[in-house]
Formats: sequence, structure tokens, C-alpha cells
Amino acid sequence: MPAPIPAPFTDIAELLTLIPDGDEKAVEAVRAREVTLTKPRGSLGRLEEMVEFLARWQGKAPPTLNNPMVAIFAGNHGVTARGVSAFPPEVTVQMVANFTNGGAAISQICALHGLNLRVFELALEMPTGDITVEPAMDDRTCAATVAYGMEAIAGRPDLLAIGEMGIGNTTVAAALYAALYGGSGADWVGRGTGVDDQGLGRKAAAVDAALAHHHSELVDPLSILARLGGREIAAMLGAIIAARQQKIPVIVDGFVATSAAAIAHAVNPRAIDHCLFGHVSAETAHARALQAMRVTPLLDFGMRLGEGSGAALAAVMVKTALHLHTNMATFAEAAVSDRD
Amino acid sequence: MPAPIPAPFTDIAELLTLIPDGDEKAVEAVRAREVTLTKPRGSLGRLEEMVEFLARWQGKAPPTLNNPMVAIFAGNHGVTARGVSAFPPEVTVQMVANFTNGGAAISQICALHGLNLRVFELALEMPTGDITVEPAMDDRTCAATVAYGMEAIAGRPDLLAIGEMGIGNTTVAAALYAALYGGSGADWVGRGTGVDDQGLGRKAAAVDAALAHHHSELVDPLSILARLGGREIAAMLGAIIAARQQKIPVIVDGFVATSAAAIAHAVNPRAIDHCLFGHVSAETAHARALQAMRVTPLLDFGMRLGEGSGAALAAVMVKTALHLHTNMATFAEAAVSDRD
Repeated sequence: MPAPIPAPFTDIAELLTLIPDGDEKAVEAVRAREVTLTKPRGSLGRLEEMVEFLARWQGKAPPTLNNPMVAIFAGNHGVTARGVSAFPPEVTVQMVANFTNGGAAISQICALHGLNLRVFELALEMPTGDITVEPAMDDRTCAATVAYGMEAIAGRPDLLAIGEMGIGNTTVAAALYAALYGGSGADWVGRGTGVDDQGLGRKAAAVDAALAHHHSELVDPLSILARLGGREIAAMLGAIIAARQQKIPVIVDGFVATSAAAIAHAVNPRAIDHCLFGHVSAETAHARALQAMRVTPLLDFGMRLGEGSGAALAAVMVKTALHLHTNMATFAEAAVSDRD
Repeated sequence: MPAPIPAPFTDIAELLTLIPDGDEKAVEAVRAREVTLTKPRGSLGRLEEMVEFLARWQGKAPPTLNNPMVAIFAGNHGVTARGVSAFPPEVTVQMVANFTNGGAAISQICALHGLNLRVFELALEMPTGDITVEPAMDDRTCAATVAYGMEAIAGRPDLLAIGEMGIGNTTVAAALYAALYGGSGADWVGRGTGVDDQGLGRKAAAVDAALAHHHSELVDPLSILARLGGREIAAMLGAIIAARQQKIPVIVDGFVATSAAAIAHAVNPRAIDHCLFGHVSAETAHARALQAMRVTPLLDFGMRLGEGSGAALAAVMVKTALHLHTNMATFAEAAVSDRD
């Protein structure tokens, strides 16, 4: 019997359960056009699936991409006190400035390809608790942060790529995966921004300590998020939830962003049907997390940057796919013979 | 002892053997900048490798992408008489018009992303011989077509993505792979533009018949190309050769374009070091051919369109990678703390 949902989370759990279906009529309309275009049927592979995905979750055919948004959620983490990162925690706020000033990788991906970049800071001056000895957040703070994430995307993008920034958060994400899927710290940690062997050992030990400390309270996915998670992960969960309600298809970034989707998936596997996974990270446990959710990432470039970079590259491919769907000639228009 | 090279091919074989090395100083200069940029070292994975690749084969740092070209080579094939394609052979010339008129997938990928599209027609009114009963080309025609491909790219692009169009040419490419790497027709054919089971059987039988008919003459890679290949494949080989001599990095498209690289590789494995492979095709034997050359494709989208589409999508990623390299802020510029 599943554990009862703690009171602060009942609305969130309900939104993850009472979810709108995709629009299969819009998908059928996309397919009806697709077979008229001057190419063998199905020959654009996942590009064709991307257009169907947009239509299904926007609920219209043809779908549009007038306002594709990359949203980065940034948070700080008390677990950095355990020496789990190659970079000092002040880099989180420094990189937030870099995103806005155009100096970061994600800024330049967005600038080149016409994606709108929004950065949401989650109380950077108040790191979450050190999960090895205390909860990351109390339930009420966690629920409020999920609600913040729901509000954050209210500008109604027609595609939402979600990413994050937060020194220490690959350790936090590893703890979430271990709590959701089993295994120890060593199974889920990786080198993150580039820790050495000793740092890797400290990450695994921090996850193990956190699992032991909170053991009796890791009873449902949202309690797991509050005990072991981070503000940016809670906010990404909120963004995923709101996107489903508001007909916004989502592209999830890498190892940390996927942990937000994993919380949603653990409440209700269908709650992430409106999410594509942009890439598989070089952080090796990411592939395992994606497998646990039975999803196939789009790109495999050995990236491990976060900040939405993998999701944004995938968004470029989605944008290209829709451009082909709307701009290619039909067999009739081009006077090309269809198959025998 | 390798077979002697037939006289028409001696110049080509020499160009494949006396090849310029890459510029490792340019690569070092790229790496020296890369570690100053505001991201963990190596965290952009293959994007960083793409910039090194451009620098190595352009011979300069930073590399440039002022004139990225997608070149499509189109040819017709006598083997279509064997019922090997789902589309009639007149589609080759119809699609060439569609490329130029902007209606094809490749036209729209290029239009969206600022790639220059060039289409080269190879005597479309004169299909090659039916390889099941006669040579595709005589040696002199084959060598002249390689030379044509060398001339075709003389406009000096700074990146060359190569693709093709030619009804029947997945059968021809399968025959080339079988001759180079062993195995029978069934090991190398696939559904191409979408043949049914009977068509698939006809493709395998055509390859087997061609291998049997030409058996005694399949003695060196260039003779294999003449007996079993196609004009567009010979021209793509020429483009690959000329690009190496002219410091132009290359991105090779899918199943058919890769067969041109395979001929070069069979003469000299180092002769394709300046080539990236844009994607792995849904044509299942493509993965096997890439493995035989020990190269790792960039994208895996289940595409099987040809016309340079996979190479062009990869070129978009390469363009993005260079944009990041040249436009991201350094740690010093952005006042971001480097690692501890």
C-alpha cells in the first residue's frame, strides 16, 4: 500500500494524477501532411516524431514554435560543505550573471538559434540543508518551490526546454535516484563538473550518509524530493507539471534536470509523456535513470554541462523538424512521382 | 601482395596515399582557449571535438565557418531494371529540381541554418550499367567522374557536407560494402526508400548476382568502385580527396555517401581522417560499415533520406560548437571562479 501523501503535497500529487491526454487528432493531421511531403515515408525518423510530439502536446496541427523558451532554474546546496564539487558554491550566482550577460554556453546556443532564455534564481543566498545531516527543505518549502516553478513558465512558451545550475546538485540528484530506484551512492554519482577520485568518494559517501539519515522518511516521491532534493529540482518539477496543464511540450536536459522528471514519473509514469529527453549525459548514471523511465534521449554528445545545454541543442533539432514539416513541398507541388 | 592499380586510377591512388597531415598546432591553440571558457573542462564533449576537428583540418585557429557547403551529387543506375527501388528512376531528376526549387528536406535545412546548397548532376540521362550483368562504368569513366568530384568543390567552402540522390543507389552501395568487407547481399541491403519484403529479396539477389558476375575483377578498391559503384559515389570520392588537399573538413552523410568514404578508407585508412560521419542511418548495415572504418557517427535519429540531410544536421551542430568557442566568455571576462 503506498504511503499517504503529506498534506503540503496533496495538490501537487493531484496535478500529477489528473493529467490531460495528448491530442491524437492533431497527431493524425500531422501524419496526413507528412506522407504528402517529397521524401520516402518515415525517412526523417525521429524528426517526424518530434513534429508529432509537438502537435500531440500543443493540441494543434500544424504545431507552432513562435516562443520556444529555455528556462534555467538555479539553486544552492548545503551538501557542498562535504567537498562534493570541483567548484566553489559562489559559482552558482556568478554563472547566473554569466547566463544573463551572454557569456555562457547556453546563452550563445540561444542567441544563435532564436531560443528565449529565462533564468530563475531560487533563493541563492539560502542554500538548502546539508542532506547528510538534515532535510534539504521542509515539506512546506518544497511544495512552495514546486508552485513557484509552475508560475515561472506562465509566459506561455510553445516549447519549454528545462535546465539548471547549482554547484553540488549532481550529488543531490544522485541521492534522489538512489532513493527512487535503489542502489548506493557509488551506483549513482559521477564526476560532475570534474571531481578527482577523492571527490568522487566524498560524493558517494555523502549520498550514502543522506540515505541512512533520512531512511525512515523516504516513503513517497515528494517526501524524497523534500529530504534529498534542491530548490531548482523542485521548481523544475513544477515547470513540468504546469507545462502539461498548459499544453506546453517539454524538453528535459541532463542528469540533474532528469531527476525532476523522475519524481513526476514516480508519482505517475504518464505524467512525463509530454517530455522529450534532450540528450544522455557523460555522467554515466544518467543513462540508467533514463532506462528506468523507459525513455530514449535524442543526442549523445558526451556533454556534462547542465544549464539546459543538451535540451537546447535538442530544441534546435525540433525547430528544424517543424520547419521541414511546414516548408517542404508536397509530391504534387513539386511534380515528383510518388512510390510505385 | 596488393593488386596493381589500373592505369586510370594511379593519380587517384597517389592522392589518397600522399595526404597532408592535420595541423596539431591549431588544435593546441583551440584547446588553450577552450580551457579558459566558462564551463568545466571537457563538459561540451563532442562539441569541443568538433571545433578541434575544424581547426585540425582547416589548419587554423580559431577555425571559421564563413562558407559551409552542402554538396549533393546525383546519379542514375541501370540496376533499377532489377526492381530494387520503391520509386521509379525518373524521381532522381525530379528531386534534383526539387532541391533547387527549395522543396526538399535538405533545401529547408540549409535555408533555416545558413548552409549553402550545391547540386551536381552526373549525366542523369546516362544511367550506369546494370551491375548484375555489366560494369557500372569503365575505368576511364570512373576516374573522370572522381576528377569531376574533385573539381566540383573548387569554390573552396570551409566545411563540406556531402550527400547524394540516386534511385537505386542503396543497392549499389550494398554491393560496394559486400565487395570491400565480405558477406552476401542479404548482409548489406536494407529497405532503402521503403521496399517491401519482395523488393528486399530482389536487392539482395541483385547484389549477389553483381558480386558473382564481377568476382574476378574486384581486386582493388577503385576497380570495385568502377564495376559496382555509381557516378555520384565516384564524385563523392573525388570531393573527399580534394577536400583533404585543400584543407576543407568534411561531414559525410548516410549509407550511400559513406560508401564513397569506404573506398577511400580501403586505399588508405588515414585518407578519411578529415571526415566526420554525420549520423547513423536506419539502413541497418550503415552501422556495420561505420564500425568497419572505426568511426563514430554524431547523430542517431533513425533517418534514411539521403540527400545530405544527416550531414547537414550535423553541420548545424558543428556550426553551433564553433559559435560557442568563439563567443563564450572566459572565466576572467565573466569574473567566474575557476575550479578549486
